[in-house]
Amino acid sequence: MSRDVATLLEALPYIREFHGKTVVIKYGGAAMTDESLREEFAKDVVLLKFIGMNPVIVHGGGAAITDHMERLGLEVDFVDGLRVTDAETVEVAKMVLVGKVNKDIVRRINRYGQPAVGICGDDGALFRVSRQLPGGVDIGFVGQVDHVNIDLLHHIQDDYIPVIASVGADRDGQSYNVNADNAAGAVARALGAYKTIFMTDVEGWLRDPDDPTSLVRQADVAEVEQSIDAVGGGMLPKLRACLDAIRGGAGFAHIIDGRLPHSLLLELFTDAGIGTKIFP
Amino acid sequence: MSRDVATLLEALPYIREFHGKTVVIKYGGAAMTDESLREEFAKDVVLLKFIGMNPVIVHGGGAAITDHMERLGLEVDFVDGLRVTDAETVEVAKMVLVGKVNKDIVRRINRYGQPAVGICGDDGALFRVSRQLPGGVDIGFVGQVDHVNIDLLHHIQDDYIPVIASVGADRDGQSYNVNADNAAGAVARALGAYKTIFMTDVEGWLRDPDDPTSLVRQADVAEVEQSIDAVGGGMLPKLRACLDAIRGGAGFAHIIDGRLPHSLLLELFTDAGIGTKIFP
Amino acid sequence: MSRDVATLLEALPYIREFHGKTVVIKYGGAAMTDESLREEFAKDVVLLKFIGMNPVIVHGGGAAITDHMERLGLEVDFVDGLRVTDAETVEVAKMVLVGKVNKDIVRRINRYGQPAVGICGDDGALFRVSRQLPGGVDIGFVGQVDHVNIDLLHHIQDDYIPVIASVGADRDGQSYNVNADNAAGAVARALGAYKTIFMTDVEGWLRDPDDPTSLVRQADVAEVEQSIDAVGGGMLPKLRACLDAIRGGAGFAHIIDGRLPHSLLLELFTDAGIGTKIFP
Amino acid sequence: MSRDVATLLEALPYIREFHGKTVVIKYGGAAMTDESLREEFAKDVVLLKFIGMNPVIVHGGGAAITDHMERLGLEVDFVDGLRVTDAETVEVAKMVLVGKVNKDIVRRINRYGQPAVGICGDDGALFRVSRQLPGGVDIGFVGQVDHVNIDLLHHIQDDYIPVIASVGADRDGQSYNVNADNAAGAVARALGAYKTIFMTDVEGWLRDPDDPTSLVRQADVAEVEQSIDAVGGGMLPKLRACLDAIRGGAGFAHIIDGRLPHSLLLELFTDAGIGTKIFP
Amino acid sequence: MSRDVATLLEALPYIREFHGKTVVIKYGGAAMTDESLREEFAKDVVLLKFIGMNPVIVHGGGAAITDHMERLGLEVDFVDGLRVTDAETVEVAKMVLVGKVNKDIVRRINRYGQPAVGICGDDGALFRVSRQLPGGVDIGFVGQVDHVNIDLLHHIQDDYIPVIASVGADRDGQSYNVNADNAAGAVARALGAYKTIFMTDVEGWLRDPDDPTSLVRQADVAEVEQSIDAVGGGMLPKLRACLDAIRGGAGFAHIIDGRLPHSLLLELFTDAGIGTKIFP
Amino acid sequence: MSRDVATLLEALPYIREFHGKTVVIKYGGAAMTDESLREEFAKDVVLLKFIGMNPVIVHGGGAAITDHMERLGLEVDFVDGLRVTDAETVEVAKMVLVGKVNKDIVRRINRYGQPAVGICGDDGALFRVSRQLPGGVDIGFVGQVDHVNIDLLHHIQDDYIPVIASVGADRDGQSYNVNADNAAGAVARALGAYKTIFMTDVEGWLRDPDDPTSLVRQADVAEVEQSIDAVGGGMLPKLRACLDAIRGGAGFAHIIDGRLPHSLLLELFTDAGIGTKIFP
Repeated sequence: MSRDVATLLEALPYIREFHGKTVVIKYGGAAMTDESLREEFAKDVVLLKFIGMNPVIVHGGGAAITDHMERLGLEVDFVDGLRVTDAETVEVAKMVLVGKVNKDIVRRINRYGQPAVGICGDDGALFRVSRQLPGGVDIGFVGQVDHVNIDLLHHIQDDYIPVIASVGADRDGQSYNVNADNAAGAVARALGAYKTIFMTDVEGWLRDPDDPTSLVRQADVAEVEQSIDAVGGGMLPKLRACLDAIRGGAGFAHIIDGRLPHSLLLELFTDAGIGTKIFP
Repeated sequence: MSRDVATLLEALPYIREFHGKTVVIKYGGAAMTDESLREEFAKDVVLLKFIGMNPVIVHGGGAAITDHMERLGLEVDFVDGLRVTDAETVEVAKMVLVGKVNKDIVRRINRYGQPAVGICGDDGALFRVSRQLPGGVDIGFVGQVDHVNIDLLHHIQDDYIPVIASVGADRDGQSYNVNADNAAGAVARALGAYKTIFMTDVEGWLRDPDDPTSLVRQADVAEVEQSIDAVGGGMLPKLRACLDAIRGGAGFAHIIDGRLPHSLLLELFTDAGIGTKIFP
Repeated sequence: MSRDVATLLEALPYIREFHGKTVVIKYGGAAMTDESLREEFAKDVVLLKFIGMNPVIVHGGGAAITDHMERLGLEVDFVDGLRVTDAETVEVAKMVLVGKVNKDIVRRINRYGQPAVGICGDDGALFRVSRQLPGGVDIGFVGQVDHVNIDLLHHIQDDYIPVIASVGADRDGQSYNVNADNAAGAVARALGAYKTIFMTDVEGWLRDPDDPTSLVRQADVAEVEQSIDAVGGGMLPKLRACLDAIRGGAGFAHIIDGRLPHSLLLELFTDAGIGTKIFP
Repeated sequence: MSRDVATLLEALPYIREFHGKTVVIKYGGAAMTDESLREEFAKDVVLLKFIGMNPVIVHGGGAAITDHMERLGLEVDFVDGLRVTDAETVEVAKMVLVGKVNKDIVRRINRYGQPAVGICGDDGALFRVSRQLPGGVDIGFVGQVDHVNIDLLHHIQDDYIPVIASVGADRDGQSYNVNADNAAGAVARALGAYKTIFMTDVEGWLRDPDDPTSLVRQADVAEVEQSIDAVGGGMLPKLRACLDAIRGGAGFAHIIDGRLPHSLLLELFTDAGIGTKIFP
Repeated sequence: MSRDVATLLEALPYIREFHGKTVVIKYGGAAMTDESLREEFAKDVVLLKFIGMNPVIVHGGGAAITDHMERLGLEVDFVDGLRVTDAETVEVAKMVLVGKVNKDIVRRINRYGQPAVGICGDDGALFRVSRQLPGGVDIGFVGQVDHVNIDLLHHIQDDYIPVIASVGADRDGQSYNVNADNAAGAVARALGAYKTIFMTDVEGWLRDPDDPTSLVRQADVAEVEQSIDAVGGGMLPKLRACLDAIRGGAGFAHIIDGRLPHSLLLELFTDAGIGTKIFP
Repeated sequence: MSRDVATLLEALPYIREFHGKTVVIKYGGAAMTDESLREEFAKDVVLLKFIGMNPVIVHGGGAAITDHMERLGLEVDFVDGLRVTDAETVEVAKMVLVGKVNKDIVRRINRYGQPAVGICGDDGALFRVSRQLPGGVDIGFVGQVDHVNIDLLHHIQDDYIPVIASVGADRDGQSYNVNADNAAGAVARALGAYKTIFMTDVEGWLRDPDDPTSLVRQADVAEVEQSIDAVGGGMLPKLRACLDAIRGGAGFAHIIDGRLPHSLLLELFTDAGIGTKIFP
């Protein structure tokens, strides 16, 4: 028994370091689809809030969107890992993200004793989005976050855990799907977050995506910039979002393996940490 | 020209009366489906906010839910005007209400210069819902609001227009569809609203639903109670919600014809008002 | 009926623009002496307050002072439009302005539902005044406002409409009569007012005072500076006050015809506006 | 020298007792007309404010009103010590009280380093007045204070010394002259003042007005009630105001001889006190 | 590693329960004299503060006082476990408690990252003490706390950990030594503490002080009252203090074995808890 | 009698000047050891607080420390007026200063009606101290204040009189004795005190310590800097502290004769003042 309370005390230096700090968590992958990991994630986030941190969650919901589109008989297409998104697709994506995925997260967090509030880029005009043209190709209503209006977050983040679905609208009120990594980086930048944590389905940033031993344990911004041209797949938007957040004034960024139970706590409360750490 | 500014002044006694007052608006029917009426509604609400009222919007979205269910090939069934709701239906209803209808309202309001925040019964644990058994019949995940936790509204209503989708969860986190009239009444009661306004697709409360000349222009709570057994259809939940709100401490309730352009302003800013007024 | 509420909505863009803004109104001329215009003015000001603006009223009271002096058998004399003011005159002027004109305005405004507070340059040491020597001529206790201490205004302007009589004292406590245009400009400058509106008995700034068609509809500060040497009469202190306010950081200045009913609302809530607009 | 600082310390128990307390001072008589006493009064009040009390001054201005009426050739008439007041008289009284007497007090206080704000019953709707009919006789626009709205005082009394001229209006906006003793009692009652001090031109309450040795040094409310039928002249409204204040929850009332230099400080800061003390 | 973060989560229900709650800790015995336990205690308290509790520490310092008295060649005498205390003894006791023991605790806590403030019953007039006459015997300047003025605690407890030495003065300013159990109970009562924890050098409340297996694991107030006549030694003031606190509105009281490392955390963060729990 | 209240008014200009100002008082010498002067000092400080100043007291306690060391049979040694301080000495000094001298001052002040709070450099990490090496000689645990963390003072100084004992700890938590003049200067500098007053047992700064007629009535910082090499004894740390405070942004410094009754009031409330005044 005495063994266990000692563990609490080992966390003390970390609790002290993170007290009052904002941590933006890009939530996704297995941690969002596996039932058991979802429960653990909700508990972990509530714990962070109770011990004095300000967690802010940003999520997408790729798999759930694809599922629902297939149920509707809609075609699913990707270019460079970005979903080709016509008007119908953006509407479906928004319904699924905001009306299902987001509220599922909110309800789970509520149950563990800290109330959450689920919002998207429309609420309080949180995001201003513009059309993204990857490599000059128009893939429809896929946007990037140009501006984050943190006023609504200031109203709620002391007493609630904000859960942000990565959709938003442009100046004309047209809705866009937004890559959640991009949204998380923009939110972290706007809040000057102490940490930005990207939960993925890989060990971290692998120099060779097929070789788990090629994990980069840490890198500074300059190193990321030098290497980024060689990066592809889903890691590219994550690294770009890390750069965006850190250059804009946020602190450390982490890419961690969300498939591990309590990956968030492992990263925050152990000396070794897990995954890849990127520092300014 | 001088004619027009005089009109502004005619509104002065109403502006004075309503200043700082909370008005809960059950939004629905044609005002929510007709493109032009939707725009007018958003403008009207923004005007109310600018002149010092606190509008709070509660909405359902029956037609949009039915549409989407049909696209998914799901069966649509009603008992006593309440949708029979299995697990799949409640999930679809929530997606449509929260992820589409709610955010459409939010975006329109944002555009006219007062930011809105769209929430549902899950956010900040706003609603606690229990299963509704109309006439003892189990029609699935259709709930009624047992408790409204207005804490989140207090955080946002000074600076934002809250837009509430009428879904929520019970103590176990199970989601329910909630009749929007019921939800509006519960919110009005919890806030002690000065006015609760139900926007409908009829002239108001008609003694004989087929006879527009049978409109009840005003009635007090006792009169409604005496007459309610004879009421059926969609008017029944509205009248029940009026009673619920007024008995719980809210002020006047109004059932108005949302098919008229600017029905909200007509009710609030003209001597005659429109529709049915119910007073304590 | 529907026609009238539409008028309310036409005002929406102006209400949005002026929300939370401070408007300093130099009140005088027919609008202050004609019984019907006085009532309308009070209503207009109350309306502005209700819809979220912060009106601040500055007034003189030339006609009433002259009346009372004549009743007392005192000699009335003017140099360049400025009253020659001996010790007895300044005392009478102050009594009439502060004890009669000011409180009449306050009581009228109170009646329409927004409380007003009448003060003069002495209260809270609002004005520090020094002797004015127009063209080097000593015309007695006629002063100009050297400094406005807005502390008292900050205490009251959120909840009351300040009504300021244009008299004040110098460092030694000697009272002075102050031209109300000068006082209004100084107050607008100190508050960084969004608009300063001078209510006059002419159409606006007329190039040729005898030719109503010579109205200057708008001019920037540079144009006013170039033309001011040619200006005389009562328009001169108004234009000087406009320059003073705008150079000191206030926004637009307007010279309007207070003889028109609701001239204030016409200027603020119609596209065309009325009179002369001076911009930075 | 050491002798003098010792005096400061003798005041310590009184300073302690009065710290943070509200003292309503009915200012009048010689203390208001004698130049030297006026200066001393201003200094005394400023001292009270600096050492942590909240002085609130209420004043009339009988002599100055009579003077001005005579200059205007108006008839001056009294019934039972109350001025017969037609419409013209009330206007003149208000001008003199508010525009001259009140601002003179304000300016003097300002000069000693604590800003004052001069208001009357119109400002912030401070007084609601109704017609007074002494012995059923209509003597015109002479009113009594029915209600004091202390909201404006709450806005200013922490940072300013309120100076209140005893005039006000009825519900219809008609102005009335108000006996300053009556007004002071009403203000003290509304504020729950710790002390109410009436400055007079006699030694205090004399059982026999012609015999200075008949001074009542102290009395409780019951004793005043028993004796009041035998009281006449200017002492009557003062005793009535004392009763009104104390019955309404204010603390001690004092009737002191304002002809003595620093009578206020003598009452507050010496063991013996001066004049008559009335306690609950 | 994953094992350790799981321990953190096991604490989550307790963290949730105790969040924002005040816990008064009577600190004494081995936990205050053993160097290693002292360090652990400081860490434990800092952890409690970081995770959102409000720990308030009350301590005596028996052993250190005796040591110093012996160094000074003063006689040390006890009656019923209470130190016989002449004027010289109370002065020495105060010096040792306030000037040495208290500041040692403060400095240790500071080092772990949450600032502490050491006070005694004199500061902010925290304690009003009266002479204690155990069994009618006068043992000198030994007092009991009659009143706790928690105003100073309200000024500091949000941002600092208060550390209170159990000495105080009576109305005349005479200092007294106060039994720390008594002081802790009085502080817990005044604050309405959620928990009061007495750290001792025994396993808890033992029915038979010589038989560790006679430990009372829990008891309600009625049971303690029935048994208290049979209790002697140092346990008596602890049980009395428990009764005092709980009757006065505090929540649970605990008597725990401070000789165990992290006894505080074991009590708070394990299901079993340790020692004796007394509930209302 | 009237004579006495006039004295109060003579203090008015000073009360005005000092209102809201912070005055750091180095308390020591006869004013701290003579029973009658101690009482007078407490009264004086309470008076300053009541009339709106913020007195902050810093004290040492040389004589009491020496007394207690002799009682313990410890050797007392001085180098250049600084006590040679081994580990045992610093512990004794701290006990005496914090546990006896400090609380005596606190209790006396409390009695006159303004609550005091006694703290030392440990509380709220108020002082960070480093070892002082006068002339390069190691005299043990004698430190100087490198940094003052005024956060705790901000929490308490509005409502309490802070009384600071001049001991503190270095970064490692090692305690040091600190010269009280040095501590007072550091506190005054950190607070930007309006006045720093050093109470001594001499008339002020004497050019020739043996010649009372050589008193320097006033000097600016430059003059002190030029003369300081010739200064020795206890005056040297006082003058250094004056320079430290003033260079760091504090206002005037005064060295006064604490043997005079009410020396503090004499300095503050008479034109002549007493002792030496040093200005920027």
